[in-house]
Amino acid sequence: MSGHILALSGGVGGAKLAAGLADVLAPGRLTVAVNTGDDFEHLGLTICPDIDSVLYAMAGLNDRQRGWGMADETWHMMERLRALDEEDWFNLGDRDLATHIARTWRLRAGQPLSDVTARMARALGIEQAVVPMSDDAVRTQVLTPDGWSDFQRWFVGEQCGPAVSDIRFAGTPGAAMSAGLSAALDRKDIAAIVICPSNPFLSVDPLLAVDGVRDALLARRVPCIAVSPLIGGKALKGPLSKLLAERGLSGGNLDIAAHYGPLVDHLVIDRGDAEDAPRLREGGHAVTLAETLMKSAGDQARLARDVLAAAAL
Amino acid sequence: MSGHILALSGGVGGAKLAAGLADVLAPGRLTVAVNTGDDFEHLGLTICPDIDSVLYAMAGLNDRQRGWGMADETWHMMERLRALDEEDWFNLGDRDLATHIARTWRLRAGQPLSDVTARMARALGIEQAVVPMSDDAVRTQVLTPDGWSDFQRWFVGEQCGPAVSDIRFAGTPGAAMSAGLSAALDRKDIAAIVICPSNPFLSVDPLLAVDGVRDALLARRVPCIAVSPLIGGKALKGPLSKLLAERGLSGGNLDIAAHYGPLVDHLVIDRGDAEDAPRLREGGHAVTLAETLMKSAGDQARLARDVLAAAAL
Repeated sequence: MSGHILALSGGVGGAKLAAGLADVLAPGRLTVAVNTGDDFEHLGLTICPDIDSVLYAMAGLNDRQRGWGMADETWHMMERLRALDEEDWFNLGDRDLATHIARTWRLRAGQPLSDVTARMARALGIEQAVVPMSDDAVRTQVLTPDGWSDFQRWFVGEQCGPAVSDIRFAGTPGAAMSAGLSAALDRKDIAAIVICPSNPFLSVDPLLAVDGVRDALLARRVPCIAVSPLIGGKALKGPLSKLLAERGLSGGNLDIAAHYGPLVDHLVIDRGDAEDAPRLREGGHAVTLAETLMKSAGDQARLARDVLAAAAL
Repeated sequence: MSGHILALSGGVGGAKLAAGLADVLAPGRLTVAVNTGDDFEHLGLTICPDIDSVLYAMAGLNDRQRGWGMADETWHMMERLRALDEEDWFNLGDRDLATHIARTWRLRAGQPLSDVTARMARALGIEQAVVPMSDDAVRTQVLTPDGWSDFQRWFVGEQCGPAVSDIRFAGTPGAAMSAGLSAALDRKDIAAIVICPSNPFLSVDPLLAVDGVRDALLARRVPCIAVSPLIGGKALKGPLSKLLAERGLSGGNLDIAAHYGPLVDHLVIDRGDAEDAPRLREGGHAVTLAETLMKSAGDQARLARDVLAAAAL
């Protein structure tokens, strides 16, 4: 087993697989390129939800019950924010705040998001590369009956309520790959590309919209393995199933495969969805059945090993 | 008892008397003008320690044990800030952070500090006016053997260690009075001016350095009553006694009276320092002996009543 792995990740589910890959690969063998389309400014703080989810999961600091943010979190700042009659639709944990404050401070001082992220990863003892997809601002927006809405407003503020008829990634085309993502794609020893079990439309598509990423994936000489975010035909968390339904799609792994098309060689799907395998294979995809539910670090590592095996690594 | 009271306040001790005055005066009869010379930028947040002390004390949210910040405070953000290897010399409590985040956000949006402060006071249920001395930036700096140092660096970062040979208020002259302070001074019904028991050199002098304040006090037609911050010849907290000693002063109430000179008509000093009274009176000051230690809201209100009595109100 040798060579470098590039993982493309969104938030929670993707972050768990990224953490699993980090556990089973020797230090320095993994680059996790993270979606920044969900990033936003809130109360003057620059918040990067997916980078945070990846950092927290890789550092073992993530809250597994809640599914986002840090474990052992408290909410005293939020209590006081409400007492001050300020906006409280986005929850900011007390521990989590340190990340937002430090990041915002460094970004304002002119440091690129890549440097800020690398510094945080180092401080948290993470021995693999974690890089934003781009140092340029990309902002995912959804079209609802009320018009275009910033992602977090819809996702958190409106709890994914309004139907989404279109998605765009403001800032693309034009957003350049981060140096770390570009370097990983260019590595001579790259051995596989992994698309983590994140929302294809909202978490992976922004990554693919960054200048050059889709082309680089299409021109790949190594296997690209996607791990499906569906279990029993449903997304564990988040609005994926709703989005699929709103597009008139059945919501199965065939839709995921169709969405990625020629970008993906191999799909890792949940053992419970084995019935999808024959048609996926007919469509030209290799398929691996695995336990894709990750409740523990052990689950994460086990799925990571299955993914590496799927890449014949 | 009628008319409006203008109180000039620094942090902790001043804030307690301000809270006492707020308790004993009917809503709308008090304006507290607060020192902003200690304000500073830390990790991208604009922190106004004296305004916070005044707001927290007037809202009954202050921590009496620690002497600063909010009661029932937690420090989880700080823990994580240290884990991220960021600057941790200034303690930011989790609850306190809401104030800094909201304030910084509003200031960056272009709102004057006066408006931001008024909004916070209102949200906290404070029925008296709390105004910054100025909406322009004034920054207290101290001259130490290492050169000029920002106040908080010396006060918190260096724990008042280096000897101070001079003090300046960067931004003055040139800083205009806030509209609230100016309006209070111009009120037809102003009945008294109170200098709260704050550090004369570090907390009150910046107020007096704001354009027009010293002249307005010299031209006053109402009594100005200063409450001494000394008890038993010593400052309860902070570097006042050290500063007095470094100036070769004995550190008694006579030094306080000499420092304020013609700005003050009446000194309220601690009962335990009664021996200072004859010489203060010889110097032309009226003197009231009072219990100036404020351990409870009751103590604050009692001292406030003594101050109002000293003003013959």
